Amino acid sequence: MTDYQAFKVELSNNIAHVQINRPEKVNAMNAAFWTEIIDIFKWIDDTDAVRVVVISGAGKHFSSGIDLMLLASVANQLGKDVGRNARLLRRTILQMQASFNVVDQCRKPVLAAIQGYCLGGAIDLIAACDMRYAASDAQFSIKEIDMGMAADVGTLQRLPRIIGDGQVRELAYTGRTIDAEEARQIGLVNRTFTDQASLLDGVFAIAREIAGKSPIAVAGTKEMLSYMRDHRIDDGLEYIATWNAAMLQSTDLRVAMAAHMSKQKPEFAD
Amino acid sequence: MTDYQAFKVELSNNIAHVQINRPEKVNAMNAAFWTEIIDIFKWIDDTDAVRVVVISGAGKHFSSGIDLMLLASVANQLGKDVGRNARLLRRTILQMQASFNVVDQCRKPVLAAIQGYCLGGAIDLIAACDMRYAASDAQFSIKEIDMGMAADVGTLQRLPRIIGDGQVRELAYTGRTIDAEEARQIGLVNRTFTDQASLLDGVFAIAREIAGKSPIAVAGTKEMLSYMRDHRIDDGLEYIATWNAAMLQSTDLRVAMAAHMSKQKPEFAD
Amino acid sequence: MTDYQAFKVELSNNIAHVQINRPEKVNAMNAAFWTEIIDIFKWIDDTDAVRVVVISGAGKHFSSGIDLMLLASVANQLGKDVGRNARLLRRTILQMQASFNVVDQCRKPVLAAIQGYCLGGAIDLIAACDMRYAASDAQFSIKEIDMGMAADVGTLQRLPRIIGDGQVRELAYTGRTIDAEEARQIGLVNRTFTDQASLLDGVFAIAREIAGKSPIAVAGTKEMLSYMRDHRIDDGLEYIATWNAAMLQSTDLRVAMAAHMSKQKPEFAD
Amino acid sequence: MTDYQAFKVELSNNIAHVQINRPEKVNAMNAAFWTEIIDIFKWIDDTDAVRVVVISGAGKHFSSGIDLMLLASVANQLGKDVGRNARLLRRTILQMQASFNVVDQCRKPVLAAIQGYCLGGAIDLIAACDMRYAASDAQFSIKEIDMGMAADVGTLQRLPRIIGDGQVRELAYTGRTIDAEEARQIGLVNRTFTDQASLLDGVFAIAREIAGKSPIAVAGTKEMLSYMRDHRIDDGLEYIATWNAAMLQSTDLRVAMAAHMSKQKPEFAD
Amino acid sequence: MTDYQAFKVELSNNIAHVQINRPEKVNAMNAAFWTEIIDIFKWIDDTDAVRVVVISGAGKHFSSGIDLMLLASVANQLGKDVGRNARLLRRTILQMQASFNVVDQCRKPVLAAIQGYCLGGAIDLIAACDMRYAASDAQFSIKEIDMGMAADVGTLQRLPRIIGDGQVRELAYTGRTIDAEEARQIGLVNRTFTDQASLLDGVFAIAREIAGKSPIAVAGTKEMLSYMRDHRIDDGLEYIATWNAAMLQSTDLRVAMAAHMSKQKPEFAD
Amino acid sequence: MTDYQAFKVELSNNIAHVQINRPEKVNAMNAAFWTEIIDIFKWIDDTDAVRVVVISGAGKHFSSGIDLMLLASVANQLGKDVGRNARLLRRTILQMQASFNVVDQCRKPVLAAIQGYCLGGAIDLIAACDMRYAASDAQFSIKEIDMGMAADVGTLQRLPRIIGDGQVRELAYTGRTIDAEEARQIGLVNRTFTDQASLLDGVFAIAREIAGKSPIAVAGTKEMLSYMRDHRIDDGLEYIATWNAAMLQSTDLRVAMAAHMSKQKPEFAD
Repeated sequence: MTDYQAFKVELSNNIAHVQINRPEKVNAMNAAFWTEIIDIFKWIDDTDAVRVVVISGAGKHFSSGIDLMLLASVANQLGKDVGRNARLLRRTILQMQASFNVVDQCRKPVLAAIQGYCLGGAIDLIAACDMRYAASDAQFSIKEIDMGMAADVGTLQRLPRIIGDGQVRELAYTGRTIDAEEARQIGLVNRTFTDQASLLDGVFAIAREIAGKSPIAVAGTKEMLSYMRDHRIDDGLEYIATWNAAMLQSTDLRVAMAAHMSKQKPEFAD
Repeated sequence: MTDYQAFKVELSNNIAHVQINRPEKVNAMNAAFWTEIIDIFKWIDDTDAVRVVVISGAGKHFSSGIDLMLLASVANQLGKDVGRNARLLRRTILQMQASFNVVDQCRKPVLAAIQGYCLGGAIDLIAACDMRYAASDAQFSIKEIDMGMAADVGTLQRLPRIIGDGQVRELAYTGRTIDAEEARQIGLVNRTFTDQASLLDGVFAIAREIAGKSPIAVAGTKEMLSYMRDHRIDDGLEYIATWNAAMLQSTDLRVAMAAHMSKQKPEFAD
Repeated sequence: MTDYQAFKVELSNNIAHVQINRPEKVNAMNAAFWTEIIDIFKWIDDTDAVRVVVISGAGKHFSSGIDLMLLASVANQLGKDVGRNARLLRRTILQMQASFNVVDQCRKPVLAAIQGYCLGGAIDLIAACDMRYAASDAQFSIKEIDMGMAADVGTLQRLPRIIGDGQVRELAYTGRTIDAEEARQIGLVNRTFTDQASLLDGVFAIAREIAGKSPIAVAGTKEMLSYMRDHRIDDGLEYIATWNAAMLQSTDLRVAMAAHMSKQKPEFAD
Repeated sequence: MTDYQAFKVELSNNIAHVQINRPEKVNAMNAAFWTEIIDIFKWIDDTDAVRVVVISGAGKHFSSGIDLMLLASVANQLGKDVGRNARLLRRTILQMQASFNVVDQCRKPVLAAIQGYCLGGAIDLIAACDMRYAASDAQFSIKEIDMGMAADVGTLQRLPRIIGDGQVRELAYTGRTIDAEEARQIGLVNRTFTDQASLLDGVFAIAREIAGKSPIAVAGTKEMLSYMRDHRIDDGLEYIATWNAAMLQSTDLRVAMAAHMSKQKPEFAD
Repeated sequence: MTDYQAFKVELSNNIAHVQINRPEKVNAMNAAFWTEIIDIFKWIDDTDAVRVVVISGAGKHFSSGIDLMLLASVANQLGKDVGRNARLLRRTILQMQASFNVVDQCRKPVLAAIQGYCLGGAIDLIAACDMRYAASDAQFSIKEIDMGMAADVGTLQRLPRIIGDGQVRELAYTGRTIDAEEARQIGLVNRTFTDQASLLDGVFAIAREIAGKSPIAVAGTKEMLSYMRDHRIDDGLEYIATWNAAMLQSTDLRVAMAAHMSKQKPEFAD
Repeated sequence: MTDYQAFKVELSNNIAHVQINRPEKVNAMNAAFWTEIIDIFKWIDDTDAVRVVVISGAGKHFSSGIDLMLLASVANQLGKDVGRNARLLRRTILQMQASFNVVDQCRKPVLAAIQGYCLGGAIDLIAACDMRYAASDAQFSIKEIDMGMAADVGTLQRLPRIIGDGQVRELAYTGRTIDAEEARQIGLVNRTFTDQASLLDGVFAIAREIAGKSPIAVAGTKEMLSYMRDHRIDDGLEYIATWNAAMLQSTDLRVAMAAHMSKQKPEFAD
């Protein structure tokens, strides 16, 4: 596995574990973080042996969000012309968004395991994952409002597809911190666990479950669910019909059917 | 009432009861099911005396989903050319989708009453209904993932409009079975009942309630709510203004107003 | 502050309090209501000193919805030609919708504080607000169905973005009344309070919280959240990048950063 | 071939010739026309041997549009309640639209050959075809405006995708008649021919050309071009990638490649 | 008729003639222009006796576009904070756009008659009209590019619906001036006339033609054509079915039919 | 300038000249072509000194389209499972599309100068450019239909935004070759030139014209025109208002205004 500055990445049993690995900095998202995550997810997408991804944070906290040093360095590049500054800022924001778009567009399910702080940019990150699970000490806050800015790397775009409109607005306008239990009640996380160890156990158990399914079927399911966030029902129906026109010719259906008949667990190729 | 192989259909008090009627086969959806449902809903749409529809399953279970014999017969039609197979599969999937589209597009509200198994294709079916109610023994599972395929007759398209994104992804990737109470908590069913008898009592009570309202008003309300799953708020506002430009000239408003004044229950024409 | 017939409007601490003020008529929405609300929100939008809005109802009830006298006066304008009547009705409905569109499109967050009746048109109104809070005696009903008509000033368009599809359909088809606690459980209101006094205390506390944030950041956040009800995630990401290309050049970021460093509460200009 | 009252249908050389066959009534579209066209295009879609369709009109004129007797019979079904009349009219219009939707959605290219009158409903029909060709005596008019109504079976929806906005508005507001040459200049027809005989020769020559191509490739091309009238470029790119994921595994590519190498005309299966 | 500073407005024979009336300033669009146009079109929309609108320019030129004095006064309102300047500029641009949106959304057809200069903002204006006609001396230029800015009151949004993509890009990037004949060839104007007198004669003749049609039918036709610039074909079909459900119950169909039978010109009510 | 295998790239006077440089292979698009073009356009986007791009082909022809060797090598990677082949093909097609998406999404205008053959993939390429210009000997053909496949790298998606629906269908179904003059008449190219030398002269003259304008204004104009291919007019108006909220604070307006006053040519910074 490649060495990364901001991450630790492991692959075993078809599960890639992507760990933010700057615990001494509360896993703040520095320059290395934003570029390395693109490489990591390109490798995940290109590697058929990876069937599921778990994202977690090393140490006591998931992540405190963007590194303030990085923000300062962007500010330093600004010049005198407002128009050319705007051109530069727009380009920079689009680049940072791209770092989380690779998570969102990853062809395999991505599960987030969250303990401790999950603030600002960390909310943007977990909103790009498929499912979220939390330890009971987790704390969530859309912190950007306290920096005098509207969040711009995904929270305001993706969270409204995950939790109710009334709740997302209150959280975004006030920056109020919620705990794991409230996060579960409003649908931000699927399930809570008593502590970090049982959190990782629980999340990896779900990941193993998914890794045992046909990767062709899982990929099709994810493509459709992501598609439906932004498309009409009739378009979605036509799209899955076109998709399955190829995929139902895969051997995985026969493998599944045979296993079903013989009451055995099916074994699918990558 | 016409005789059907896979259904039993009754109409009384303006409520059509459409019952899947193959209890000895766990109400599995065979070839007759997929074609008869189209005829049934065409009749429902054309018959003004039908104001509400209840879908239920005869026997201990709602339905175990698509009949595996049917799947096998589709597989048998495939030939050697992948392209022409794809053409055939696409057409077949679109046809099967059409069987549930008639439920979705039905001009009257459709209520599903669910007990026991509700698996695979049965989830696709209830996702096309307006509201879902369950007996406490109901079990729900997006079973397609275990057949090595992405669900392709509506679950992945319609369920994300009904339950939260995080939950739908976990259920679709893992095929995990949930019970009636969990289904209620995540919003998949509106209400649960202790057993099948009280389920049908409860659902028919709601159906009677709706059957007593102006059918013109109910039809407009359904049209708008279905429209809003896929359209913008501004488009929806313009559409209801155009719709009500005709419908507010109906006598039903005067009937309702007169009943309101005289504190009596209004009687609306079909 | 201008004198209004149907409202009482106050501004203090950057919070505009817009109170429906016809308690003797259960705050029914008469002709003055529909025109004055447009003027009030134009003033709010043009007045930088207003940073948050609270809408409430004077007396024991929030509002019983549209004034039936107003409906009758529209009916009286109808003539003999169905086509020209339709032209007139369509125009009238679009005008009434415009009265709630100004609430929806207001550049500042709008919080609704609801006690007692919240019926028919009152649901249309609160569906156009950012967040809703209720006293324990609140009662909600989509009353239009009982007037023989489909709701046409916003409920059917905006409510499906706020609460689950299954619930909204049951409430809209049956007109069933729900109380504050059920409203909270289905996500219609964010929080409940024991009585009207604690409701207003609670809502104004949240309003003050928001009024203390950067108005540039809050406006951007609202713009994005409203945008995302109707737009794709990729469009939303591009839009916020364009928006923040200007707004990140605001002084508010420096003010926030400086306050953060010095552990003081930031003071933002209007 | 089935016998039809309003049409004559022939199949030879993989080309279906669908001829409107009521020359003594200027090919006016009567009740039989609207139902038979659905059966005809169902047969075309289900018959792989049909690769291209030509629509023409028997006698001196293509068609004078909807039969006024049919309009009158609809009017006769109207009752006293404006709301229920509206329900009936809406249903009737949607049914008539369905008769031209089958032309639009036909999986094979449809070429219209037009001589003489092409008025009202006939414009709605040719707007649903892939390409239009005209004899020099052709006359086109959006006649509905002179019947006191907005055209409602497709002209106003599909024509703006075919000709320029400025031209379509003038023609639709005034009902002005244009001849074949003007129709060619504004892009309504692709090419003109001196008379009816050379028109049919020319159109069948183009049809033969298309019938000689891979039907898999032609179907994919039509699906994409129709899709692009209503979808975004990025969606279209993703759709063709999904479509071709199956279709590029067809033998037709190898057939085409082999023919290309050996400089022979390829022979594709249906 | 009200007195306007920037316009002269006349109504005769159901045709409103809206003339930009600052010939000594080449009809440059000053502050009065931008507010008065809103009042004028509100009057047009509310006045059933107006069935068609002609926009023209007094003197030798149609209009040289926005008054540079007005631009300067906006610049003078800008302060030191880039964010608050952006807020102000965005609001101002949206307001100016609103002045041409009323033209676009006018319920009656709007015809532009153009001679001499038609520059910058004047292109934005005519792009919001239904049809455009020009005298042979007309000169068109998307002048904004030479002021160092992207056009922002409609040209870049509406022109691509009117002329081809390749042409609109060349004109917008270069600001190249084209004459009446080239404008006609690329579809920007429908027809050219030798001089201003024959231009007005010709345009009023078309206007009279339209004014003689059923205003119900013309309004429906315009609504649909405008709708189709931004909506899908299937949505358009459903919308016209809903629209005509009311409008086909109008007396205008019977008036038209009777006139058709008796070979007389129909007389429609306003 | 970097050395490329398939291209020759030059920058002078703010114009980047990107020349396909495999004249001995009729500029067929080989593996190097598809990857190098991404690097080239990344450099163009990141280099403010590049204000306009000209794409041309070295030698007698623009390009014969995709290299058949490349197609064969993709075919060789296919295995036995149809589903996994589909996964691979889909990924490959999306990658090749990405090579032309960079042209489409380039922040600067891209002009294509075309002589001789412009076949298959070459049409996909020029459809991603802003404007197209041709020498009189140019020949255009949507050649993919003759390879037994639907074009899948952009032609079917982008061409319908450039030329009329009727024409694009005939060309795509038949693969018919058209010459420069017909291409001009249907709007595929903006202008024709007698030979290759005058073509390059003419195109570079237009490029110089554009390079002299404010790059801030040109970039905004391109962003908007590209945006409008896929978005609604109201969204476009709101987007330009947000965009110009920043860009109108640029110095370029003052530079342009000052030049206008002093009747001099303005000089804009990159």
